[in-house]
Amino acid sequence: MSDVINMAINAKKASIDALMLSSEVKNTALNKIADSLEENINKIFDANKIDLNNAKDISSSMYNRLKLDENKIKDMIQGVRDIVKLNDPVNQILWEKDIADGITLKKVTCPIGVIGVIFEARPDVITQISALAIKSANAIILKGGSEAENTNQTFFEIIINALSEIDNFPKSIVNLIHTRDDVKEMLGADKYIDLIIPRGSNNLVKYIKSNTKIPVLGHADGVCHIYADEFADYEKALNVIIDAKCQYPSACNAVETVLINSKIKDSFLPLLENKLKENGVQYTMKPNEWHKEYGEKSLSIKIVDNLDAAITHINTYGSGHTDCIITENKENAEKFMTYVDSAGVYLNISTRFADGYRYGFGAEVGISANKTHARGPVGLDGLTIYKYKLYGNGDIVDDFVKGKRQFIK
Amino acid sequence: MSDVINMAINAKKASIDALMLSSEVKNTALNKIADSLEENINKIFDANKIDLNNAKDISSSMYNRLKLDENKIKDMIQGVRDIVKLNDPVNQILWEKDIADGITLKKVTCPIGVIGVIFEARPDVITQISALAIKSANAIILKGGSEAENTNQTFFEIIINALSEIDNFPKSIVNLIHTRDDVKEMLGADKYIDLIIPRGSNNLVKYIKSNTKIPVLGHADGVCHIYADEFADYEKALNVIIDAKCQYPSACNAVETVLINSKIKDSFLPLLENKLKENGVQYTMKPNEWHKEYGEKSLSIKIVDNLDAAITHINTYGSGHTDCIITENKENAEKFMTYVDSAGVYLNISTRFADGYRYGFGAEVGISANKTHARGPVGLDGLTIYKYKLYGNGDIVDDFVKGKRQFIK
Repeated sequence: MSDVINMAINAKKASIDALMLSSEVKNTALNKIADSLEENINKIFDANKIDLNNAKDISSSMYNRLKLDENKIKDMIQGVRDIVKLNDPVNQILWEKDIADGITLKKVTCPIGVIGVIFEARPDVITQISALAIKSANAIILKGGSEAENTNQTFFEIIINALSEIDNFPKSIVNLIHTRDDVKEMLGADKYIDLIIPRGSNNLVKYIKSNTKIPVLGHADGVCHIYADEFADYEKALNVIIDAKCQYPSACNAVETVLINSKIKDSFLPLLENKLKENGVQYTMKPNEWHKEYGEKSLSIKIVDNLDAAITHINTYGSGHTDCIITENKENAEKFMTYVDSAGVYLNISTRFADGYRYGFGAEVGISANKTHARGPVGLDGLTIYKYKLYGNGDIVDDFVKGKRQFIK
Repeated sequence: MSDVINMAINAKKASIDALMLSSEVKNTALNKIADSLEENINKIFDANKIDLNNAKDISSSMYNRLKLDENKIKDMIQGVRDIVKLNDPVNQILWEKDIADGITLKKVTCPIGVIGVIFEARPDVITQISALAIKSANAIILKGGSEAENTNQTFFEIIINALSEIDNFPKSIVNLIHTRDDVKEMLGADKYIDLIIPRGSNNLVKYIKSNTKIPVLGHADGVCHIYADEFADYEKALNVIIDAKCQYPSACNAVETVLINSKIKDSFLPLLENKLKENGVQYTMKPNEWHKEYGEKSLSIKIVDNLDAAITHINTYGSGHTDCIITENKENAEKFMTYVDSAGVYLNISTRFADGYRYGFGAEVGISANKTHARGPVGLDGLTIYKYKLYGNGDIVDDFVKGKRQFIK
């Protein structure tokens, strides 16, 4: 049996042991991890320096994501402590009711089990996702970017050492794998792994979706739209479009295509062109760009005949991430927000708000364009499912089938 | 482009059109279907007779499932009318809150989109699942058993004709495919189809899970356990075991393995052996049967050292469906119900209660052993997901990043 399969089996066992962890023990573990990160800050910088020295052929943006500084590490530690403060997502009774006299049914939240997380360059993901997993009593198997290998290994050791200090803590709850072959084996371990979360490029997410039977939580593209309706307030439209493109152009919730109602083309388009120029944003009106996620200060513009055409365009070319209408007409707004089949449907507000922290979730597991399980920004509860607990007293179905007893309607 | 892909594209369009259907229109459609079924009852029997005449080489249980009689059709019609009475699962506001002054976030339920449903012999599934899809505004693509081809085609035509009587109703919401090649194409249409629900044998479910990238809702096995704890009430244990095995032996929630605490072996096992004999139940204590779903009046018995061993056995050999402990000890009960990683964890009650109708859901889409989206008996809400609606007034993220505005904590 391969090392990765063995690891997955042990992770499954740890996930079962973790079912009994109290909120207090889990929070103690998180605080210990935060403390250990503080104590080992020099060790982390040393490891990161090795990775930075080895990183010769990477882009400057990748180098910047790889490079840790005091502020980033402070944020990572604070991120772990913030998760301590969140409510325990596990063992919450969603509802309970008597289904018959003396028979009580409870729907109770519980962890998913074993989760594989594959992330690229950014080493700060490792502490955040480990903390989320511990809080929700899930086991995780992590694979970081190879550029950050030393940094990731150091974080992993700090986490494991911190967990080892707690009596009987199932420390196989956090696991790290290293190679592409390891990833392949993990993707095949559908018997032991319940969910895969890829955090990285479109190509990574697409590769994973095509190579596993395990459910995948994530989104491959972020092709977000803003539609300027014939009843748009121009100032709002311009402010929202510039914010949605320029505030952080490489974010998945940045706008990629602006749709303009043909009735306002002559009055609005020149204003928009000026604004885009002022802010250094390139644009094109070529139809072959309508699937494109620019990830930089560029966007597509299309003139559409009416609201229906805007909705159809978005449902055809969009990625189901986040799409916005700018309008003062309530009926048009509700029509857009009903018919556009996306995780986020927005009225007069920047698409950049699509984010777990901004939604008030306290943490973000990732953003999902899935149509099952979890959609949009996913908080801690996206790492949970539920079980049904049924309490009886020797009850048998035969009594109900024979009409001796009745279910409560 | 193949017929099935074309159908899937049209189903996707219909699912978008269906987003605007009011509860009233959907209920009108369901009542029209029920009325048409009543009016066309002879047509249905004629079609069914053709299928029965063609069915030479099938087992008697399959023949019985294929054969329709007055009672079955009455139940089917009543099943459609029952779905009218259920609450509309779509456009329900799960919660809403202001994330900042003037910015309101709403989490709202919506349909999943396009669902593929593959079911074996039982033709009664077609009206039930069509009604559930219409109620939840999902489009469906149905594939029934080839033995029931004429019956299924007749039901399908009755449904489509009923929907055609309603102005502008997107009747491509219900679709029927016919061959194994059609199924293959459907399983490959992950661009248009959002969920696959197989309702049938283990082999069917396993085949589907191995041959699609689309999420699958269902369970392959139903290996349910009853553990007689050292603190078991023997009468309750015997009654529950016999009900769970004999009341309907081929059900997925029937018990397959009985675990007995070694401390009560000498006193309890002889009583159980008697009871099994009385009820014509065969049993074996061979270890190679511990994964087995008998589907008939047979079961496995294993003596276990203690509660922990019972839990480990279930988590190793079970299918995550439904498992029960018989005990008068509350601590043991809670330990079992926490550590056993199954959709249903039961105390002193027959596993046969694992059923959407018995849980009070009013309808059952199927039973899921998945760890994501929906688990256990799945009601109408298992066919929904949610979207986030965000209402602003020209708001931009830049103001929050620069500290000019604050999110509400």
